[in-house]
Amino acid sequence: MAVNVRARELGKELDKHGIDAMLITDLANIRYLTGFSGSSARFFLGSRGGYLLTDSRYKLQAAAEIKGSSGVRLRICKTANLELGRIIEKASVKKLGFEGSGVSYDGYRALKKAFKGVSLKPVAGLVEKRRIVKDKGELRAIRRAIAVATKGFESVENAEILKMTEAELASRIEMVVKSEGAESMSFSTIVASAKRTALPHAMPTNRAIKKGFLTIDMGVSLGGYKSDETRTFCVGEPTKRHRDIYGVVKEAHDRAVGAVSAGVVASAVDAAARKVIKKAGYGKYFGHGTGHGVGLDVHEGPGLGPKSKDILREGMVITIEPGIYIPGWGGVRIEDMVLVKGCGCEVLAEGLQELRILR
Amino acid sequence: MAVNVRARELGKELDKHGIDAMLITDLANIRYLTGFSGSSARFFLGSRGGYLLTDSRYKLQAAAEIKGSSGVRLRICKTANLELGRIIEKASVKKLGFEGSGVSYDGYRALKKAFKGVSLKPVAGLVEKRRIVKDKGELRAIRRAIAVATKGFESVENAEILKMTEAELASRIEMVVKSEGAESMSFSTIVASAKRTALPHAMPTNRAIKKGFLTIDMGVSLGGYKSDETRTFCVGEPTKRHRDIYGVVKEAHDRAVGAVSAGVVASAVDAAARKVIKKAGYGKYFGHGTGHGVGLDVHEGPGLGPKSKDILREGMVITIEPGIYIPGWGGVRIEDMVLVKGCGCEVLAEGLQELRILR
Repeated sequence: MAVNVRARELGKELDKHGIDAMLITDLANIRYLTGFSGSSARFFLGSRGGYLLTDSRYKLQAAAEIKGSSGVRLRICKTANLELGRIIEKASVKKLGFEGSGVSYDGYRALKKAFKGVSLKPVAGLVEKRRIVKDKGELRAIRRAIAVATKGFESVENAEILKMTEAELASRIEMVVKSEGAESMSFSTIVASAKRTALPHAMPTNRAIKKGFLTIDMGVSLGGYKSDETRTFCVGEPTKRHRDIYGVVKEAHDRAVGAVSAGVVASAVDAAARKVIKKAGYGKYFGHGTGHGVGLDVHEGPGLGPKSKDILREGMVITIEPGIYIPGWGGVRIEDMVLVKGCGCEVLAEGLQELRILR
Repeated sequence: MAVNVRARELGKELDKHGIDAMLITDLANIRYLTGFSGSSARFFLGSRGGYLLTDSRYKLQAAAEIKGSSGVRLRICKTANLELGRIIEKASVKKLGFEGSGVSYDGYRALKKAFKGVSLKPVAGLVEKRRIVKDKGELRAIRRAIAVATKGFESVENAEILKMTEAELASRIEMVVKSEGAESMSFSTIVASAKRTALPHAMPTNRAIKKGFLTIDMGVSLGGYKSDETRTFCVGEPTKRHRDIYGVVKEAHDRAVGAVSAGVVASAVDAAARKVIKKAGYGKYFGHGTGHGVGLDVHEGPGLGPKSKDILREGMVITIEPGIYIPGWGGVRIEDMVLVKGCGCEVLAEGLQELRILR
């Protein structure tokens, strides 16, 4: 669906939610609806089109980016609430929806004060639920991001790994993906060596990479769309324990991938992975959910935790990322992105089939 | 002031604000008070110590990081509000302060629901106002971040600039600062060439760097503390217009630096820069404020906009960053970080004294 159609379609359904207009503050939602990619904006959407409000820094960029979005007008302003007040008055808005998760308590109070006589209604997930299933253009962007990330992961194999620190390896990978066209990283690249692989979200340090597991969790952003994948290598000869634990996580990963299909409840995918890890005796070392949706945000719907009631639908893009993390020893996570199909799924980048050894 | 003293001191003044305890959700505030640097946490602070709540991913890291903070206890939990409810009950909290700017409207509703019988009171800036003046340890961290960033800026001079894209130059700089010890970037590095320098917040593209202005706005994070500086170079021989506009911005910058001193109202520093730019006829091309505080956040108090009523105090670290941005032609920003002194200020990294030409 073209960007300009998205806002129009949403505009038409506002009355179903008991609102005349909607104030959208989440930047990924704004990008989805208008094409604007800057770091500061609000989007007012009524049934007859919308207004993108941003500040003078983004004057040129915003004008260029919203060109394709017919019905979206640009307002450059210093005080967005002042300008919004005028728009709301002109459009005779009585009931204004807003994003309860994206507006702070103080922000809500400021809206109340600025728009006297307007009833404010928190409305959740109106845009997010449209973003959850990807269209062709979005899938193209995601595939491009993954292709670029793959070059980054491959570059690890040529690195003189034992002469580098975690931080050096992280920046080397980032340089590779940026020279391949990544606009930015999806999140701070995780590079963890040896014992530090037991920390699922370890930030790279200036410590030298040592023998043992090496976990790299990295993603790139291209056209706003994100990738998010994790590969775990072994530096030097793996012990039996290294091989065993990697094998368990790999099997959990493969079982979860095998469970993905349209119509399946997301918790069943988590259960497929968790069962393997529990059975192998590592249940308490797998503390997070099995995955999440990826798109304009690196974490978006659906959730793939043990309690998720989300139902998988064709066109969703999700991660499958089971892990085992043993404090004081180390850990493994294997994370791929998959596209949910009507029957089964497509793994968007085939990761490592077995434990890869780096020397 | 040591981290463990910070929480204790704040705990003692809660009753002055009409609250028994405070729920802190802003991650930089949590880091300031406890030392914890992870990406997910809440900090409950009562008059007799506090509880840091985070999830299982951060179990090891949190335990290590809060070690120095006596009186801060760690709680690993899946549902923070549930655990908080227990703590609040045990501590007989009647009035709980929270950060109105950091808690979303939905988050506020969830607190209301979870802590029945507790009166919730938004309290603004309790931690921020303590962070605004830096202590010796913080200044050391900021100086280290700036020293590393300087290496990144210097690396531009040896680059084969006309053979690179904006994105390649950005990642080259990032690799240099990371190999020099940067933990992460303070923000997405801005590299803009030629006409794109007219966009104050241009993200690097895959377009080749061309002759004309080259603006690099970059900062590094070290121990959580940020740097934020901008240098504008000229690629190839500058025209008279290049030299003139650079000269105006440089004079505006120097006048603003000259106006910084403890006791001065921040808007006067902005006025010092703005006057020079207006007088030269470029007033409408300088749309943003002259600077902001920098610390654990890359943007924090004080603000140095035209309307700022903040009074500068000794030990504040601020940016001075006037600019001129001419749509369709290009722009210049010169940004340095300065430490406010009792009398005058110290420029923390001497930037470029004149327009540097790259070939």
